[in-house]
Formats: sequence, C-alpha cells, structure tokens
Amino acid sequence: MSTIPVGILGATGMVGQQFIALLANHPWFRVEWVGASERSQGKVYTDACSWRLPVPLPERVAKMTVEAAAPSSRAPRLMFSGLDSGVATEIEGAFAKAGHIIVSNARNYRMEATVPLLIPEVNADHLGLLKSQRAAMGWDGAIVTNPNCAIIVVAMALAPLRQFGIEQVTVTTMQAISGAGYPGVPSWDILANVIPYIGGGEEEKVEKEGVKILGQLGNGSVTNHPAVFSATTTRVPVTNGHTASVSVSLKQKPSLDAVIAAWNSFRGRPQELSLPTAPAQPIVYMNEINRPQPALDANRDGGMGTSVGRLRSCPVLGYKFIALSHNTIRGAAGAAILNAELMHKEGLL
Amino acid sequence: MSTIPVGILGATGMVGQQFIALLANHPWFRVEWVGASERSQGKVYTDACSWRLPVPLPERVAKMTVEAAAPSSRAPRLMFSGLDSGVATEIEGAFAKAGHIIVSNARNYRMEATVPLLIPEVNADHLGLLKSQRAAMGWDGAIVTNPNCAIIVVAMALAPLRQFGIEQVTVTTMQAISGAGYPGVPSWDILANVIPYIGGGEEEKVEKEGVKILGQLGNGSVTNHPAVFSATTTRVPVTNGHTASVSVSLKQKPSLDAVIAAWNSFRGRPQELSLPTAPAQPIVYMNEINRPQPALDANRDGGMGTSVGRLRSCPVLGYKFIALSHNTIRGAAGAAILNAELMHKEGLL
Amino acid sequence: MSTIPVGILGATGMVGQQFIALLANHPWFRVEWVGASERSQGKVYTDACSWRLPVPLPERVAKMTVEAAAPSSRAPRLMFSGLDSGVATEIEGAFAKAGHIIVSNARNYRMEATVPLLIPEVNADHLGLLKSQRAAMGWDGAIVTNPNCAIIVVAMALAPLRQFGIEQVTVTTMQAISGAGYPGVPSWDILANVIPYIGGGEEEKVEKEGVKILGQLGNGSVTNHPAVFSATTTRVPVTNGHTASVSVSLKQKPSLDAVIAAWNSFRGRPQELSLPTAPAQPIVYMNEINRPQPALDANRDGGMGTSVGRLRSCPVLGYKFIALSHNTIRGAAGAAILNAELMHKEGLL
Amino acid sequence: MSTIPVGILGATGMVGQQFIALLANHPWFRVEWVGASERSQGKVYTDACSWRLPVPLPERVAKMTVEAAAPSSRAPRLMFSGLDSGVATEIEGAFAKAGHIIVSNARNYRMEATVPLLIPEVNADHLGLLKSQRAAMGWDGAIVTNPNCAIIVVAMALAPLRQFGIEQVTVTTMQAISGAGYPGVPSWDILANVIPYIGGGEEEKVEKEGVKILGQLGNGSVTNHPAVFSATTTRVPVTNGHTASVSVSLKQKPSLDAVIAAWNSFRGRPQELSLPTAPAQPIVYMNEINRPQPALDANRDGGMGTSVGRLRSCPVLGYKFIALSHNTIRGAAGAAILNAELMHKEGLL
Repeated sequence: MSTIPVGILGATGMVGQQFIALLANHPWFRVEWVGASERSQGKVYTDACSWRLPVPLPERVAKMTVEAAAPSSRAPRLMFSGLDSGVATEIEGAFAKAGHIIVSNARNYRMEATVPLLIPEVNADHLGLLKSQRAAMGWDGAIVTNPNCAIIVVAMALAPLRQFGIEQVTVTTMQAISGAGYPGVPSWDILANVIPYIGGGEEEKVEKEGVKILGQLGNGSVTNHPAVFSATTTRVPVTNGHTASVSVSLKQKPSLDAVIAAWNSFRGRPQELSLPTAPAQPIVYMNEINRPQPALDANRDGGMGTSVGRLRSCPVLGYKFIALSHNTIRGAAGAAILNAELMHKEGLL
Repeated sequence: MSTIPVGILGATGMVGQQFIALLANHPWFRVEWVGASERSQGKVYTDACSWRLPVPLPERVAKMTVEAAAPSSRAPRLMFSGLDSGVATEIEGAFAKAGHIIVSNARNYRMEATVPLLIPEVNADHLGLLKSQRAAMGWDGAIVTNPNCAIIVVAMALAPLRQFGIEQVTVTTMQAISGAGYPGVPSWDILANVIPYIGGGEEEKVEKEGVKILGQLGNGSVTNHPAVFSATTTRVPVTNGHTASVSVSLKQKPSLDAVIAAWNSFRGRPQELSLPTAPAQPIVYMNEINRPQPALDANRDGGMGTSVGRLRSCPVLGYKFIALSHNTIRGAAGAAILNAELMHKEGLL
Repeated sequence: MSTIPVGILGATGMVGQQFIALLANHPWFRVEWVGASERSQGKVYTDACSWRLPVPLPERVAKMTVEAAAPSSRAPRLMFSGLDSGVATEIEGAFAKAGHIIVSNARNYRMEATVPLLIPEVNADHLGLLKSQRAAMGWDGAIVTNPNCAIIVVAMALAPLRQFGIEQVTVTTMQAISGAGYPGVPSWDILANVIPYIGGGEEEKVEKEGVKILGQLGNGSVTNHPAVFSATTTRVPVTNGHTASVSVSLKQKPSLDAVIAAWNSFRGRPQELSLPTAPAQPIVYMNEINRPQPALDANRDGGMGTSVGRLRSCPVLGYKFIALSHNTIRGAAGAAILNAELMHKEGLL
Repeated sequence: MSTIPVGILGATGMVGQQFIALLANHPWFRVEWVGASERSQGKVYTDACSWRLPVPLPERVAKMTVEAAAPSSRAPRLMFSGLDSGVATEIEGAFAKAGHIIVSNARNYRMEATVPLLIPEVNADHLGLLKSQRAAMGWDGAIVTNPNCAIIVVAMALAPLRQFGIEQVTVTTMQAISGAGYPGVPSWDILANVIPYIGGGEEEKVEKEGVKILGQLGNGSVTNHPAVFSATTTRVPVTNGHTASVSVSLKQKPSLDAVIAAWNSFRGRPQELSLPTAPAQPIVYMNEINRPQPALDANRDGGMGTSVGRLRSCPVLGYKFIALSHNTIRGAAGAAILNAELMHKEGLL
C-alpha cells in the first residue's frame, strides 16, 4: 500500500513524534528514516526518544536506528521536518540543496519569498512558487512550509471570507500547551493560570504569516493580502487545540447567514483530490452557543477539521466569532502531511 | 473598632461568603445579620452554609442564625447584597423601600437610570444620582451597585485613558471559574478546556455597563460615554482572576509611555480618602513581558489592585494591552465594600 | 452486519452517551431504542440530550425518539442500562420481569446473591448464576452487572495473582472526574485540588465488590474470595482513567518477575472467544518507571486495556504496584458491552 | 525588631524564594545576604532571579547583590539553605566548617548519623546530636536539616500516635507540583494527569527519614523508630499541598476517638516556646467527610498547620486517614525557619 518512503527530521521531538503517529497507517507514505540531533544518533529510536503521545509508538519505527540529520544516500527524497528553529535553516537548506523535498513545520523558511506557506485548502496554487524557488535558491530539491499553529486556525476561518473583502482582523488566541513542545511550559507557570504572552515572536508570526497565506500568486511571487492583522496570543491550561476570538471587518457587509454558508460550503483542492488526510468538510460552523471547545472539538476529522462558532455582529469591526483547530495536527504535523499529499497528487514529489 | 453594623443578603452563596471573609477584620463594618433563602432560615450559619473558601469562617458569624431575606427591625440599615439575580429585584427593592442602604453586587438594578454603577476610583461622583433615585423610586433607602466582574477590570484600565479620548474598545476576556458561583461550572466542562461563552448576557453586560461607568454625571443623570465596546467573554480553568485582552483606539494618539504614566499615576477618591479597602496605587503597570497572570497577580493589594501589562501598538485600533483583576474581590464583594466605605466617608450611610 | 437490536436505559446520561458512542460501529449490536426519564420522553434524542463526548453523536441515534423507561413491545430484548441508582432497582426489575436481558452498569443489583458481577476475563463462569437468578427472582429475563469503576481496575490486576494466594489488599485510588457523571464534580471543588472522598459508598463498594468478583462459583452461588480489602478513594483533576496504588500480600511469595509474567500472560474467555470489544492482551505491564498514567494510557485498546506498572516489594504487605483503567469504558459502558458480547457467544441472549 | 542577620543559600531557586517571602516580616531574622550559583553572582537579586511567587518580592532583598555560595566575612553566621542536592554536600560542608550554622532544606546531610532531621514539634530533643556532630565532623559550625516534604506530613500525623505503638505504616501520597521546584514538572506531563512516580528516591526518603524523625535520642545518637514504612509517591496537578492516604497499625488498639483526641491535643516545643512561626495547634482534625483538601486547607496557619481527616477503621492495618501539609512552607522553607527559631530559643545559634 504505502509505497512512498519518507524520512523524519527532528524525529525525537514532539512534532517528530506526531509525524510518526500520524503516518503509522498512512496509505501512501511509509516512514523509512528517522534523523535527529547528535545526542540521539546511532541509538534505536525507542531508546533515543521519550515517547509522550497517548497512542502507541509503531513497532516498525521503534526499532529504527536514528540517523544524523544530514543528507545521505540512505535518506529518502521526501523529508518531513519537525526541526527546532535553532537548526532548521542550515539542515533543511542542506537537504534541499542535496535534492530532497522538505515539507517543513519549522518557521525558518516560511517568510522566504519563494517558499510556499501552504494550507492546501487555502492557497494550493502557491506551490507555483517552487519554480522561482529553484531558480532563486539553486536547489535541486525544494522546501515547502506550513504556517504557525496559531495563524492556521485564523487563516482557515478567514479564507472563505476573502470574497467579502477582508479589511481588518483582530485576534486573541488561547493556545494549548502542546504548542510549546517538550518540556515546554513548566506546570508551575500554567496550572490554573493564563500566560498572556507566547515567546518566539508568536504575535508577529500571526500578523505576517496571515497576509502571505491569504495573498495572491502572480508572476512567480505572492502579493500579500491587504488586510491588517492584530494579534494577542496567550497560553491556557489546555492539552490540545488553539482557540481564537476573532473580529473582522468585511467590505461587502454580508449577512451573518451568508458568512455561515461560506464556511460550511468551503472546499479546496484537498477535497477535490480526496487527499487521504483531508477532512470532507474543512470548516464546520457549530450552532451550539458555547462551541467550539478544544476538549470537545479539536479532534474533529482526526484533528484536521476547523470548527467555528458564535458568529455575531461586532460593534467595532462588524463581525466576530470563535475558531478552533488542533494545533499539533492541523497546526503542525498533519498540516505538513496534507501538504505532501497535495504535492504528490500534483506531481511535485 | 468596627462600629457600623451590616447585614449580608444572600449570605450563604459564594459572594455572601466572600463578604463575610473580607469583613472579618474590617475596621468600620461588623457583620451583625445574615439573610438567605427559605431553605436556610432559622439554621445556624455554619450549618446553613457549605463554606468553600480557603480562609476560615469567622467564629462570630458561624454561630449567627440565618434570617429571612426580608426587612425587619433586626436588620441593620446597611446591607451588602450577594443575592442571585432571580430574586434580587424584589428583595433589594423591598429593603430599599424599608429604608435600608443596599450595596449590591447583583446585576438587577445596575442599568437603572438613577442607580449608581459605582467604581469609587472611576466615578465616585455618580453617587450624586442618589438624590434622583430617592425621587424616582420613592425609597427611604437606596441602592448602589458595583459592575459585573468582567467589565470592572476593563473599566479600571480605561478610566485613566479617558483624557486621551477613548473611541473604540474590543475586549476578549478569559474568566475564572469562581465567577460562576457554586456549583457553577461542572469540572467535566472546563478541566483542560476553554468555554468560549458565558451565560446570563455577559458580553452585553460588558458592553452596556462599560459606557455607563465611564459616563458623565450631569443634571442628576449619567450620560453614557460615547465609546463603542465589543466584548467576547470566555471561561478558562483558572481559580480566581479575570484576564482581559483589550484593544482601544484613542483620539489623541498618546505615546505608549504616556499611557503607562497615566496608569501608574492614576488615583481616585478612595486614595484621597484613604479608604480601608483601597489599594494605594489602583493600577500597576507591569514591565515583565508575560504579566499580568491570574495565578500570580490577582491577589495584588488584597485582591483590590488592577494589573496591566503588555502595552503595545495595535495595527487595527492603535493600542493593545492585557488587564487583570480578582473577580470575586475587586470584581464583586470587595467592590461593594469599597463602595460602602466611600459612602460612609461621604456621609451617605 | 450488526443484527442484534439493543436498547439503552438512561440514554441521555453520561453512561448512556458512552454506550451510544461505543456501539456506533459495533459489529453485532445496533441501538434501536433509547429510554430516559419523563423529562426527555417524546423528544428527539439530540434535543433531549446534551451530548458531551469528544466524539460525534451518531446520526441514526440523534434522530430517535426517546421512550419511557418502561417495558413495551417496542423495546428490544437486550437492554444496556446506564440508569441512576435512584431509579434502577425498580426499572431494571420491571424489565427483567418482562423478559428482557438487562446488562447494567448501575450498582443496585450488584451485590444480589444471584446476580453476576461480571468481568469476562475474571469470572466468566459467574454467568452460571443466571439459572439460580431465574428461580430466585421469578424473572423471565435476567440482570447481569459490571463492577464499580474503581474496583474494576483493581480486580483486573489481582485476578492473575489469585494463583499466588491473595491475602490482604490495600488500595488508594485517584479517580477521574468523568466517574461522577454530569454535572458531577463542580470545578470549584476539583480544579488544582484533590478531594479525598467519593460519595455513594465508593470505598465500601471497592471492598465488597472485590471479593465477590474474585469469588468462586459453586452450587449455584458465589463464595467470596477470602482476601481482605481496604480502600481509600479520592478524586483528582483527571478527565478519564482511574489510577490505583495497590499493596497486596501473596501467600506463595512469588518473585516480582513471576508476578509480571502472570499479568502479561493473563487471558480470559473474551480472548478465547475473540469478542469484538476484548483487548488482545487484557493486562499490560509497563516497564517505564513512571507509568501507567491516565492521560497517556487510559485509552489503550480502545479504553478496554488495563495497565499496570511499578511492581516492587512492599515492606508491609510484600508487593505493591500501580494499576490503571479507563473508568467510563473498561469501568462502565465498555464493561457492559463486553458482558453482553460474552453472553451472546455463550448463547445466553 | 528583627535583629539576627541571616543568609540564604540557593537564594534564586524556588525554596530560596520561599525563604525570602516567609522572612519578609519575620520578628527575629533579617535577610542580609543572598548567595547563588556562579551564573547569578554579582547581579542584583531582582535581575538574577525570576520571582515566581504570588506575593511581592521584598524591596530590600530585590536590591541586594547576589554573592558566591562560599564562606566569606560578609556572610552571616546563620544560613538557610535551599541548595540543590547536586551542590549542597560541598557548599553546606564548607560553610559548616567555616563556623556557620546551616539550617538546610537539602537532602544531603539528612541521613548523616549526627545531623538532626528536625521537626520541632516531634523531635526537638534531636538537637542534642549537635554535640556529637561537632566531634564527628570537626566543624566549628553545624548543620541541621528538615525532612523531605512528603514525609513531613506523615511524620506530623504519626508523632502523636507513638504512644499507641506504631507498628506498620503504608502511605500513598498525592504531591503538588511546587515540590518539584522550577521548571520542575512539564505541563505536558501533569495537566489533567497523575504521574505515579517521583524521582530522586522519594519513596525511599519517606521510608528512611520517617523512622529517623520518630526515633529516640540516647547516648548522642538516634535509634530509629521500629515501625516499618511503605511509601508510594505520586504527582498530581495541584499547586501547593501534599496529601497522604495513610494506613497504620497500632499495638494498643486505641478507639478512633482516642486517636482524634491525640491529634487535637498534640503540642510540642514550638508551642511551649511560642515560636513566631509555630501554629497554635499543630495538627487539626477536620470532621467534614471530604477534608482535608490541598486547595482549601494547605494554607492553614500560614502554611504551617497539618490537617488530618477521615479517620476510620482499616480492615488490613487497623486505622486509616488522610493527612495534608503545605509542601513548600511546612515541608520546606517554613520548616527550616521553625528549626532556626527553635535553635535560637534553645541558645544554639
């Protein structure tokens, strides 16, 4: 069945583990190679990694020997990257240069002009950047990235509203602890608490990545969407699922019903192509007055669905609502896998 | 020492318990009377009430007999009310008619034109409404209210910014479970979760109470502040302390430093009068990048201080920041006690 | 496929919802009837029930009309009961009298001499009581029960140790909030807290049910196991999964390795019969020093697996270890479903 | 007022911070010196330390310069140590040799034959070891230790039962995250979870320290108490307060009432001497069926009180109950301060 060999860069980290868990029964991709930092090299994966997911570590991967995170003849062409940003620039670049396709969750190349910042439902055409990328970078391979876990939920919810003319967006996120990796947030800091700040430029990422994701491809480059974003990102004691409180101004003043219809009817390339990881309906509007909630709704469609709810008039910007996605699946490893599925079907692998 | 006898309406509920805890060592007020619903009447307080605070129930109050929540010769003139909104209209009205001064945390009379919605630091002069109230209501007594626990933190933070011309305000709150009383929020609903909705018209309260609190008294009535508010209120698994993510547009475009200076230098009537429950500095701006946090900062100044932080430019509205207050102290029982202290010093008891 | 129609008594409660969720894709059983209290009767299930599980409510059941919890010609012969103990005695009795097979999670009939208190891996032969039950009760139908959610984890872990001569058992549980149903434990009581007490006679249930479960069938009745149990049951802020700290004295003083081998090799009737809900290996000993943990291990084998770990010498009783099961699956709805599967294969339905 | 200068070793860590917080208004001791690891030396305390307590950092200490953790002429004679065990052996030894009195929370010297493992209410006479210590160690100064935070709650509860002949003790603890220091337990590991293991030999500490604390001084050494302890230690998502489920066998078979009376009437040297940090009643038996609870009871008497509850017959060992103390106050910094207070009054400083 699964005939395309893939490698995992940063395989022992939290995103790497999530890749392995999600690929365990993938119909196309088969993990054949795991790479990690020097400390892990040469060890059997199960010894190198402290497996922390509530699903079992697949036996096949458990026995693999961890390789150096450097190109080699054993490394498959397709590489999923869950590398830390401290090392991703160099390592991903080296792999791309050596002819590998890097489908990365790291932030390092996201804002590079010729690197697609891809959400397949939203901007599948941005893969068109790869031709410019090859030219600009001189790589035999390529790098494709998925967005930051906080903007992904907002961008998904906004994509169907582009038709109404998005002008201004304010967003306050309430983000799960799994977004910080491991060991991540000390329990002393977050138990029964809110931390109104997330390091690593989280708010800037939301603001900058948002306009690139929603932007338009033309002449081999992406023109940012003209909307203005303002983000406040906070951490809350939730395991998985980033919740966003969003206000937005829309030029065409659609009715609330029209907005809801736009969400529920929204489909993209992954649905057209029936990609294995794609949810049948990417965005589901929930009518219950107190939804979506991370503990109940983050796992919709295997963690790939986006839930929105509570659409109502905003006295300041016009419209406001709540949006939610699973941050380590739709917002990280699952996002990258969907990207690779799209590339496979589009003949780009 | 404490020579003014007071009664507690709704004494067995969570707000009632908080009143009793905060008044245990009050220099002026002495609890002499506790009233509750029929189920509790005639019982000794300690039997009628399931005490749920992490401070001890004062012995004196423990032994009191719970009275009917109705005016009587035994009831002191000054009454603190922690009544449920389902019964507060009738009971508070009856007490006011019978000549009592009701300092209430209930929402029922807050939006009544002649009832002060009081934050002593912000609108002490609104007590001037009491003359109109007596005329309009025909009461021998009076009702004074404190705001909803969610708007209080926002109104405190905005009050010093009125000088800069507040135009638009968007706020997303992350509210503690103690705000829902007891039994309140089921643990199944909130453990490791966010509920993006709070019942009882919480968002409307924030939007409507805000403009009344910041409004101007003139000719015996309050003219609402012209600012437009938009609120999203959510529940998070935090014990005490409501956190607000606020964006605001200010006509005069002050520098960020000028805003911070306005907060730190802000003082009101309670500070002038050195009221016992008043914090020396009502609003403290925290320079740490990840503050304020409810678990660390809600208890500042005995729970009466408001903390703000993370002031920065908002690409949409101009300014954004985080604000925090203790919801059952500054946002409920402590607020009412400060109101009564102000009234005492102003000769209104 | 699933050709055996079943009904759910107490269908709108938390256990009822769990039955519906677990039966959604069951190969044998098909929910055809839902019954609940008067308040829900006549309503469509989705309106009668506030669905609170993180998996979707099956469409088929959503549209069913809720029936009265009383025998009728429409009610299927096989009934799963998630009834509250306040009403289960009467209702379950009425159904049994009317010829129904009640597979119940309620505690009411558990200690009845002729009612099997069944864990299929542990005491499948206790189904032999049904003959005595029919004689004693005069029922055309029958009642079979599953144990309390706290003892189930302990009984599973002890069953393979019966061969070594169990003498004394002390157990301290740390139980998940889902065990208390809905609304269950108020968040104010349990957030960042431990409640060292569980109402409804939880400790007595553990002590009394334990010896019946492990007891021996003979001459149409069960002789209690001679072991002495002592239980302390506590509530902790965990969503799903009851953890037990167990000390046990064993007459034959097996080596620690022999105990571990007994656990890992333990199989029962469900494994022999390959029952659909049965885990392949009912008890898994985990070698990691800090396992099992509810957040990571409760869902093993769809929530039907029991995990044990940390076996070591107990200076007082000889052996001590940690055990864990999912309380609403292996400890409630899943337990009952496995019971019914066993009865089906044994020709008792 | 506070005329005895003291130093804090490990001043920037969590225990060090707790020392500073608790000594802020101490009537006898005044922090005059703070020492920490090389990384912090020479910095102003407020810059060297990330203050993480929900009470303000005292201004006086905030401005102090952090010193090297080595003896010097500037270092006061009395030193409180919150050092990590990785460095405590050497540093505390060096200070003791240089003539300082080290009142330490570190585990390193606790089991040393001539070092008192002191709980002033329980074994004040163990200070008699100091003479032997000076002889054995050749120190001009001295080291006195307080027990591990988990055994302290158990030892407090058992001390008044020594008169009944303690034979066997089994204990399962549910320990707060603050016991692990900072960053301590990752939130990913403990949010809505139980970790049934605490590293660093926690269970061994409980078992070994318990018999030393309860042991008898004679001829310059302590003879361990003959009771046998068995401990299981777990981590739960609680902020402060270690809860213990204890079973105990007592030779004399006292009535439950006699046990309760023994607890409530228990007093020790700190109460005789009215030490400033001593609770008036060290152990309080709570009659409520679901107490003690960490969130409600850990702060009793400023965190120095021990609460017990739920005494009942244990079918296995005879007696069982729940005990609770604040782990970073009674179980760490507060314990050491009480030790120093006792030493001061006994003329040992």
